[in-house]
Amino acid sequence: MSIEILPDLLGVFFFAVSGSLLAGRKGFDLIGSLLLGSLVGLGGGVVRDLVLGQSPAAFSTPVYLVAPVLAALLVYFLYSSVERIGRLLTVFDAAGLALFCITGTAKALDSGMNPVASVLLGVTTAVGGGLLRDVVANEVPRLFSSHDIYAIPAFLGAALTVLCSLNGVLNLGTGIVIAVLVFSFRLLAWHFRWHAPLAVW
Amino acid sequence: MSIEILPDLLGVFFFAVSGSLLAGRKGFDLIGSLLLGSLVGLGGGVVRDLVLGQSPAAFSTPVYLVAPVLAALLVYFLYSSVERIGRLLTVFDAAGLALFCITGTAKALDSGMNPVASVLLGVTTAVGGGLLRDVVANEVPRLFSSHDIYAIPAFLGAALTVLCSLNGVLNLGTGIVIAVLVFSFRLLAWHFRWHAPLAVW
Amino acid sequence: MSIEILPDLLGVFFFAVSGSLLAGRKGFDLIGSLLLGSLVGLGGGVVRDLVLGQSPAAFSTPVYLVAPVLAALLVYFLYSSVERIGRLLTVFDAAGLALFCITGTAKALDSGMNPVASVLLGVTTAVGGGLLRDVVANEVPRLFSSHDIYAIPAFLGAALTVLCSLNGVLNLGTGIVIAVLVFSFRLLAWHFRWHAPLAVW
Repeated sequence: MSIEILPDLLGVFFFAVSGSLLAGRKGFDLIGSLLLGSLVGLGGGVVRDLVLGQSPAAFSTPVYLVAPVLAALLVYFLYSSVERIGRLLTVFDAAGLALFCITGTAKALDSGMNPVASVLLGVTTAVGGGLLRDVVANEVPRLFSSHDIYAIPAFLGAALTVLCSLNGVLNLGTGIVIAVLVFSFRLLAWHFRWHAPLAVW
Repeated sequence: MSIEILPDLLGVFFFAVSGSLLAGRKGFDLIGSLLLGSLVGLGGGVVRDLVLGQSPAAFSTPVYLVAPVLAALLVYFLYSSVERIGRLLTVFDAAGLALFCITGTAKALDSGMNPVASVLLGVTTAVGGGLLRDVVANEVPRLFSSHDIYAIPAFLGAALTVLCSLNGVLNLGTGIVIAVLVFSFRLLAWHFRWHAPLAVW
Repeated sequence: MSIEILPDLLGVFFFAVSGSLLAGRKGFDLIGSLLLGSLVGLGGGVVRDLVLGQSPAAFSTPVYLVAPVLAALLVYFLYSSVERIGRLLTVFDAAGLALFCITGTAKALDSGMNPVASVLLGVTTAVGGGLLRDVVANEVPRLFSSHDIYAIPAFLGAALTVLCSLNGVLNLGTGIVIAVLVFSFRLLAWHFRWHAPLAVW
């Protein structure tokens, strides 16, 4: 648990920053920033834990609440303008995505889920918070954007996590490698506008 | 279980097609089509199973994941244009509605819920996926459209399912009759623009 | 239970009225009014009960369904125009907020949650229904509005509920005092446009 909680907390923090940045761009106030950050950072994990039939970590482990508070304060004090928020939001969002696809999948495997369902739940955890963020703030969800690739890196990370776990080599080292891979893949896809074929050709 | 899983899978498939069609119309990519189809097809059932305190079937029974994949591929290969997507979307949505109001209600009754709550959960299952679809894709939910009737056919199907079940005559035959009734009612309401009175007169 | 269910039911009714009023303003029909009212009135409590690992009260206790029906009928028969709906919506929304931040927190404490998590779940219950209402109806959530203060009264009410409960003085009398405080705070904040600093300064 103690090994897993740190990357999960980091993921919450990164996603919460992305929520607070969006709150800044939309003209929300400081409380709205805290709430949107909490929803983004904790929302995906709450859905994950409910599906696993467990008490959501965000409620049972109060330390999780520190991350959105830090995120809202960081955004409040460090960004005096709303310029370049889009770029930063994408970077923090990618960092959260990279961590959550691993921790979500690992938690599902730990709870005895089959490998296929674990990948699915890992991807759900990773993309869920960002989807909530964009829907609640009335933006087109970047998950569905056809300009770049968002879900495939998360899927890849979840699949690699299952592979490593099945082969008994899921540890801090391989976890970091997977996270860096997912993070780089997502940011490269965003920067070079790699994209998938459209839904209808 | 084996009797129930087929209509439920068919319902997932029909709703997933409606999601993928909407993804096509909104210009989402193939991955977005798969994800929106999964959300629509599986979302209502996940909420149903969480309310019932069960492990969501979409995760515990991996075969459920086949339906959205088939739906996304079907939409990708068969529709080379986005014309007439609105009409097709309505037909597939109605088919999903007809099946889910029955399977959702039957699963609630099987789990020992009282009849009134079973009807409510059946309606929630039936309209939930489509509501998620429209909200996530930033459309006005057709559930709330005042141009035609959407929830009443689902309510009727759920109520008939409870009645049949209480009288011990809920089987494949009566199930098909109820599904055809709900499907026809919904499409007739859509075609002839039957509508309910407004919320405020 | 019997002591707690009445304020909870009242909260459901107030929120359901706010949903039906919004349905009226958006031109939804009577069924849409009932459904939106149900979603707003019951949604926050369903999330609360799922997090607590309990069967959602809205399903296990059918009397909960009476409140949205009454709300939809009330709005249908009493408001023949859509004028001044905004003001009424805010008042009923504030009443629901005041009751739910108390009942949500009390239920969390009863279920053995720690005080910090109980406050969080109380606030989630109180703001959840209204957030669902605004998201589903495609409005900017008033939770995030920077024109006035929405979440702080709910947070204050939840914190006072925990304080009273820890000191063994949570009863009908103190509950009413807290509810009146939260209700007045919210309406004063709305009327005088008290607001928090923006997310980004």
